[in-house]
Formats: sequence, structure tokens, C-alpha cells
Amino acid sequence: MVEETINFRPIGVIHSVHNETAKTPIQPHYALGAMGVVEVFDEFAMGLQDVEGFSHIYLLYHFHVYKEARLLTKPFLQDIERGVFATRFPHRPNAIGLSVVELVARRGNFLDVKNVDILDGTPLLDIKPYIDKFDGWFKNTRNGWYEEVGG
Amino acid sequence: MVEETINFRPIGVIHSVHNETAKTPIQPHYALGAMGVVEVFDEFAMGLQDVEGFSHIYLLYHFHVYKEARLLTKPFLQDIERGVFATRFPHRPNAIGLSVVELVARRGNFLDVKNVDILDGTPLLDIKPYIDKFDGWFKNTRNGWYEEVGG
Repeated sequence: MVEETINFRPIGVIHSVHNETAKTPIQPHYALGAMGVVEVFDEFAMGLQDVEGFSHIYLLYHFHVYKEARLLTKPFLQDIERGVFATRFPHRPNAIGLSVVELVARRGNFLDVKNVDILDGTPLLDIKPYIDKFDGWFKNTRNGWYEEVGG
Repeated sequence: MVEETINFRPIGVIHSVHNETAKTPIQPHYALGAMGVVEVFDEFAMGLQDVEGFSHIYLLYHFHVYKEARLLTKPFLQDIERGVFATRFPHRPNAIGLSVVELVARRGNFLDVKNVDILDGTPLLDIKPYIDKFDGWFKNTRNGWYEEVGG
């Protein structure tokens, strides 16, 4: 019953100051202040209406330079192999990236964003508003292996 | 330079108590206590190692029953048309859903999860750990039109 393949196509492209994978921050948390521009293609620009009301947005994008999936992988922060679904590592069966960035301004179909941990030229798949009531209410979370590395 | 199409395939399927789209909660926040089971297909099961250390996980999935994209849409919570990227509405150019659910237990390649706002039978695309330091640190967010509807 489950679909065999699902086809998506980029709705835009993410421009950033990060030109090399090896030097691209692994999380917005490690990219504080790094500016970027989200370009949404003209045909989708109408969908940006009202987005400027939100201070933070999710960007969903394609880890387009990471072709090979790995089920076990050493995360960037630890030299121990972990299941990929317990990491945010880019080599994934479906190479979808997820970042929450700060939305500074909208200029037509361009969004100026801050705390960008995304490689320049990355294809954009979706934008969703970050809504505190839905996304920021988790308390006393357990954070698995990440608690061993702190950081 | 941007890719024309991106092909993903389901890594599993989400089982839930929600059998009808019209009765499916629109956010985990409105699905408190609703249990579900995430089934990860055998070939990807190794990627689940270590995931049980996390109390909350992101599920990324395909809004598979919502075929038609809308750029302007009335969100479930308000009778005013908004740009789709300022909403979490399922009719999107790339119909990717995002929910943070509570991970109660792992049984092999099955995850028992709580606060599930997802339609039964939904194809799973990815699982990522929710990490408080990366995902829960946003303060004083502005929440756009959502602040008009409150609770």
C-alpha cells in the first residue's frame, strides 16, 4: 500500500556563506549570526504571504551533495557509531535536512535569514512557520548520546 | 543548477488511531495522549540504533492523501487566507509533514509514540532526534497570524 517513490522538486535555493561542506556548521546553534538568503522561485512566491509575521521558520531542504545513505554513522560530535535516525547526519536514506533559522526580513520572494547552517546552493523543499505553542513546549527531554558530548 | 526532481521513497509507515483526515488532529499539541506505532522497514532498521535514548523525535512524512498544492490557503485555525509557507497546512508544493512526537519505547523496528497527529497509513520519510539544545532554545518568538487565534 505504501508508495514506491515520491517525487519532489525544489521550490527555491538557499544561498549562504558556507561554500565547503567541511566548513559548514552542523546546526544553527553553531552558526549564530551567519546570514543567508532563501530564494523562492517566482511560481511559488505567492505562498510566502504572511510569513514575515514569524520570527523563526523551519527550512526543509535536500542534502544534495550527500548521495550515499548510511544506516550507521559517526555523528560530527562523537567518535562512536550511531544509528542514523539517532543523528542529524546528512547521509540518510531520504536526504532531507531540517533547520530552524531566524527570519530577519522578506524582500518579495527573498528571505533574509540568520543562523544558517546550510551549504550554499542547497535546494529548498519547504518552509514552515515555527510556532512556539506547537514546537517549543517540550520540557525535561532526554537527549540520548548527545548528553555525553554536551557542548 | 538546481535539481529538477528529487526522488524519495518511504522508509516505513506510521500507524495511528486516526483513520479519517477530517478527524485527524492538526498538531501533536491537539493530540496529547494519542498513541501510534512507527514501523520502519527491515532494510532500514539498523538506523534505529540509539534512538531509544531520546524522549522526543521528529517524524518527517508524506502527506500522501493531499495531492493538490495550494499557495494560498485557509489554515485550520483561522478563516482567513494565508500563504501556505506561513501555515502547516498539508496541501503544499512538496507535501512533507513534520511532527515532534514522544518516543515511549522501541521494539525492534517498531517505535511506540505518543501525541500522534498523523493519519493512519502515512508513509514515513525520515526520523531525527529532537535535541533540546538545537531545537528548544528559541525565546520570544513572533508567531504571526497564529497570535490572533491563540489557543
